[in-house]
Amino acid sequence: MTSKATSHLLSEFALIDEIFAPLALNATGAFGLKDDAATCALPTGHEMVVSTDALVEGVHFLRDDLPALIARKALRANLSDLAAKGAKPEGYLLTISIAPWIDTNWLKAFAEGLAADQNEFGITLIGGDTTKTPGPLTLSITVLGSVPRGSMLRRTGAHEGDLAFVTGTIGDAGAGLEILKSEGSDLSEADRDFLIRRYFLPEPRLIVGGLLKGIATSSLDVSDGLLSDFSHIADVSSVAIKIVSARIPLSPALVNYRGIRSKAILGAATAGDDYEIAFTAPSSFRQILQEISGELGVAITEIGRVEAGCTVALLDESGKGIKVESPGFTHF
Amino acid sequence: MTSKATSHLLSEFALIDEIFAPLALNATGAFGLKDDAATCALPTGHEMVVSTDALVEGVHFLRDDLPALIARKALRANLSDLAAKGAKPEGYLLTISIAPWIDTNWLKAFAEGLAADQNEFGITLIGGDTTKTPGPLTLSITVLGSVPRGSMLRRTGAHEGDLAFVTGTIGDAGAGLEILKSEGSDLSEADRDFLIRRYFLPEPRLIVGGLLKGIATSSLDVSDGLLSDFSHIADVSSVAIKIVSARIPLSPALVNYRGIRSKAILGAATAGDDYEIAFTAPSSFRQILQEISGELGVAITEIGRVEAGCTVALLDESGKGIKVESPGFTHF
Repeated sequence: MTSKATSHLLSEFALIDEIFAPLALNATGAFGLKDDAATCALPTGHEMVVSTDALVEGVHFLRDDLPALIARKALRANLSDLAAKGAKPEGYLLTISIAPWIDTNWLKAFAEGLAADQNEFGITLIGGDTTKTPGPLTLSITVLGSVPRGSMLRRTGAHEGDLAFVTGTIGDAGAGLEILKSEGSDLSEADRDFLIRRYFLPEPRLIVGGLLKGIATSSLDVSDGLLSDFSHIADVSSVAIKIVSARIPLSPALVNYRGIRSKAILGAATAGDDYEIAFTAPSSFRQILQEISGELGVAITEIGRVEAGCTVALLDESGKGIKVESPGFTHF
Repeated sequence: MTSKATSHLLSEFALIDEIFAPLALNATGAFGLKDDAATCALPTGHEMVVSTDALVEGVHFLRDDLPALIARKALRANLSDLAAKGAKPEGYLLTISIAPWIDTNWLKAFAEGLAADQNEFGITLIGGDTTKTPGPLTLSITVLGSVPRGSMLRRTGAHEGDLAFVTGTIGDAGAGLEILKSEGSDLSEADRDFLIRRYFLPEPRLIVGGLLKGIATSSLDVSDGLLSDFSHIADVSSVAIKIVSARIPLSPALVNYRGIRSKAILGAATAGDDYEIAFTAPSSFRQILQEISGELGVAITEIGRVEAGCTVALLDESGKGIKVESPGFTHF
């Protein structure tokens, strides 16, 4: 009975004390999660950058996914927003609506995932709310970051003549999700693990994003799909963006998975969950971006250009448009 | 078919553009909800105060509740946290996980509720996230406020010798909820409406809270129940708090509902959802608090005192402790 009781669910206050408060130890403004609110101070001349995401069991993750991976992906997806905006992480708030199937052990593993990524990305829980739900487990994370006033990287600002860039490799997460859903393939275990890891553990490009301030004219993170996300920039910047399909950076694992490179590209360009930074910058920064890439060991690939117009197009090697049925993920 | 399509659900982007973006018009840092993040600047020497709450259909509100009232109560409950912390509202983020039964008309009415309270309390939507859920409608609101650095009202800080105060009247919301759940009573329509309104539309005491900085030694908003919430202060301040039951401020409507005053008090002291400010302050501020009360037309009632110890007690007129079975609401 005791062990059953332990693996069931702690009371609300015990849960906060034992599971969540340890995540807030390093933030003085979190007050040990023992107050109604947290404080967050900023360096002089800075402003707060805030972003929030809700994640629902069965929609954004599955019940059987490892709790630590659900936690880390949720936090990383939010950190990726800060990265693409050039912001430095300052803290985050978590609301968790706990479904009947969740027990204390699940929450402990979930918190261990958060602890690992707090450590890796230098961010700390500063507040939140726990409640019960009869329905699916539902999470909401709000991240707080800082930038010098007025320097947040925006989606607007792409200019005719700018170049289009993307960090890392594209399409891995989409392939990872496909692999998780499928029966198995003749892919090597190393390639399989790499792609699945890219799905569960996206890499928020915080250092790159921080250095893009003053360089990028527009920026966002690739969450819906490369073409779809560049179309958001095209929309609000009132420009056309031409992406050269052969330049889209693909991992060797993805090419192995899709069979041939040309087959991999269209899937990659329209797959979601990459959490790389897609941005535009004047061509005068081409050299500096190469140096940043070399220094950080993060690929920054020039994949296209900004022109007059209002659409996004994917071009083949002869410069002709490739027909795209669906440019990316839509939530509903 | 057209009207059916209209009353069903807009696409994600149309929903943001048509329903939520109008709520963000007055916040320059919201960028029309067309970016990945919002910015929020603070006056020099200030810091951010943040708080978040999740609300779940069937737990915190019912599917049949009016959407505008669900919206307003959610926002007010969060604003009440800022009020109790002495913070000035700066903006809020909303995540909404939309259940299958929600249609566009419901969301329009929900947004109208938010618009009404934005206007009343001088706060603006600055960001959020919309997603679908197969389960209950789930909301999460994060409010951002500001205080001069280090001046946030805390739960810690109550000292032996301080007095205990509460704003407004206590127990109305709990009675309102009882009335909503019951078959009817012989209460007058005016009393009934008053109590139900107090349940759906709590009054965040933002102006009072702002003036308590430098006066209150500890402060929180009454959400779980007066005794339960004072016990949170007692816990973290390591003091005992003695509440004189006869001094707990009750509305005439509540006394009418419960029949006699003494019967009303215990229910009031342990009912949740009041969203009044419970605080402690040195007795030297008694006069100033009376003046603030008179000037603002908001009752501020001295209801007890802080002593050595570590518990909360409810005293009868002879100073003897009244036995309380359950001091307030616990979430689980």
